[in-house]
Amino acid sequence: MRTVDWDYKTGKLLLIDQRKLPGIYQVNEYQNYQDVIEAIQTMVVRGAPAIGVTAAYTIALCGFESKAGVYDELVVDLTRCASDLQKARPTAVNLGWAIHRMLSYIKKNEETDTDKLRIAILGEAQRIADEDVVTNLAIANYGSKLINDGDTILHHCNTGALAAVDWGTALGVIRKAHEDGKRIHVLVDETRPRLQGSRLTAWELAQYKIPYDIITDNAAGYFLSRKMVHKVFFGADRVASNGDVVNKIGTYMLALAAFDNGIPAYAVMPTSTIDSSISRGDLIPIEERPSNEVLNIQVGGEKVVPEGSSARNPAFDITPNRLLTAIVTEKGVLHPPFAESIRSIL
Amino acid sequence: MRTVDWDYKTGKLLLIDQRKLPGIYQVNEYQNYQDVIEAIQTMVVRGAPAIGVTAAYTIALCGFESKAGVYDELVVDLTRCASDLQKARPTAVNLGWAIHRMLSYIKKNEETDTDKLRIAILGEAQRIADEDVVTNLAIANYGSKLINDGDTILHHCNTGALAAVDWGTALGVIRKAHEDGKRIHVLVDETRPRLQGSRLTAWELAQYKIPYDIITDNAAGYFLSRKMVHKVFFGADRVASNGDVVNKIGTYMLALAAFDNGIPAYAVMPTSTIDSSISRGDLIPIEERPSNEVLNIQVGGEKVVPEGSSARNPAFDITPNRLLTAIVTEKGVLHPPFAESIRSIL
Repeated sequence: MRTVDWDYKTGKLLLIDQRKLPGIYQVNEYQNYQDVIEAIQTMVVRGAPAIGVTAAYTIALCGFESKAGVYDELVVDLTRCASDLQKARPTAVNLGWAIHRMLSYIKKNEETDTDKLRIAILGEAQRIADEDVVTNLAIANYGSKLINDGDTILHHCNTGALAAVDWGTALGVIRKAHEDGKRIHVLVDETRPRLQGSRLTAWELAQYKIPYDIITDNAAGYFLSRKMVHKVFFGADRVASNGDVVNKIGTYMLALAAFDNGIPAYAVMPTSTIDSSISRGDLIPIEERPSNEVLNIQVGGEKVVPEGSSARNPAFDITPNRLLTAIVTEKGVLHPPFAESIRSIL
Repeated sequence: MRTVDWDYKTGKLLLIDQRKLPGIYQVNEYQNYQDVIEAIQTMVVRGAPAIGVTAAYTIALCGFESKAGVYDELVVDLTRCASDLQKARPTAVNLGWAIHRMLSYIKKNEETDTDKLRIAILGEAQRIADEDVVTNLAIANYGSKLINDGDTILHHCNTGALAAVDWGTALGVIRKAHEDGKRIHVLVDETRPRLQGSRLTAWELAQYKIPYDIITDNAAGYFLSRKMVHKVFFGADRVASNGDVVNKIGTYMLALAAFDNGIPAYAVMPTSTIDSSISRGDLIPIEERPSNEVLNIQVGGEKVVPEGSSARNPAFDITPNRLLTAIVTEKGVLHPPFAESIRSIL
């Protein structure tokens, strides 16, 4: 199934519970929007594109939840839902992008009967989900041409089907190259603190039968400096108009080490991840998540961190555009200077 | 007590079992040298200086174990022990340095009665241990002058008392600055895969009442780029004659991110860690440790890595001298060009 989907029989939103993978494959059902907001915050669903599509469906869910009989009342309910959703996570722009598109759609359909409008809103959410798959396939087609037979690829976080509706971004590129018959080996960095690499990317690669080894985030520099990696791929949660990439914590040091060793580093995302209203990466808000995500690590069933320790846990960092070889989107592969190449496709 | 110590009442070698900290403080006793080799390999004891002193005491232990009645037979036994010890771990040079010093001492005392020689060998090991403390205090005195009141310091791995006999290297510098009354905050990176940061450094800092926050290794770049760190400190397992530093995996990316943000990075070690026979860091052998160290991570009592996954686990990486602001030793603070400043003190 899709990572994020709508069950038309029951009118429920379905999310693969990504906190339980790879041990347990469980699909959660949602029928009220507050529960979805909590699911976004606790990372049942994560990955910028997946969060965007989830938000779109959640507006539809909110429409069905609302008791409003007239357009204006329905808009009040939907706007409150949109505003609560917007606050769920601050960094990824796809959330705001999907909410904005849904509200614009609702605004354009003022004349519609509210019951018909509820269904039409679901239709728009469905279009966003379907377009996400088409977009990701276009990304995969462009990006896979960058991969050669025999490449070893270092990949950060999870950017696969689980981060989107299907296919995903950077991992979709790798999957497409594999399906095209290229022999690829992937170094999967574990991506502390939430281990999206060793939990989710490793799980996806195993499904696709792509060979991989897990490494600690610390080990990336070693493999890069020994030239045992040909290319580095990662996704993005928000991209500034100059091409600075805000992505999962650790991306900056990884891109820096790739650059220091002359190894190409590619950021992969749909153009909906580009926030043309923000000129530089350091102006993008960075979410700091609960310290427990760092402190709850165990080995052999034992907590390893001393009692009473505190932690800092920024979830994202900023990779300056100077460290990127290219940016891969559904509209093509963008090269430096990125301010220009980004402007040309928006 | 000391991290590595000799119990004169029982004739046993004592090691704090660092695999059990911070949960359990346990001192293991050793009376045969094969067990100590296993303790080194399984990291009951770790840290380049601590491994060196452990090796010295182990030669003494081997002397008492040997049934030899004449010098030549004793030397055969001690040489076999030394050769086995040498293979215990390949990267840290202090191991080889201590063994070499012990064998030289034995060679110089050919005339001594074997029973007296056994005790004299223990005396030499004890001198190495005591000198380690004196050396570390000298390092701490030089290094602490680099720290200002109010500094936030990012520290990698464990380089404290637990990595030596007492005090340690980089963490000894921080401890000395704290004891001198400077207000310091430490960002402790967890240091995957064995978590020497969040397990051992956090535990030591708590003992010394130095305030700290734990961060993931991935987060270092974020705090450096936001200029929330004033200095970066780490130790070394082997230093080439040009100043390239081989240290715990992750050091290279950390030093690179410090350099990229103009934040000083200091490598701290006794001069016994400098291997003047090796001209560049990339010629130093890098130990690859069991993949289970990467794969055995748990959260909430559950293994998080998919069954059947493999991992690569290099234990060290190479930080090129161009990324270092200075090298701190017991003979003073060395500045670039390091080939020259190192030559001047050896």
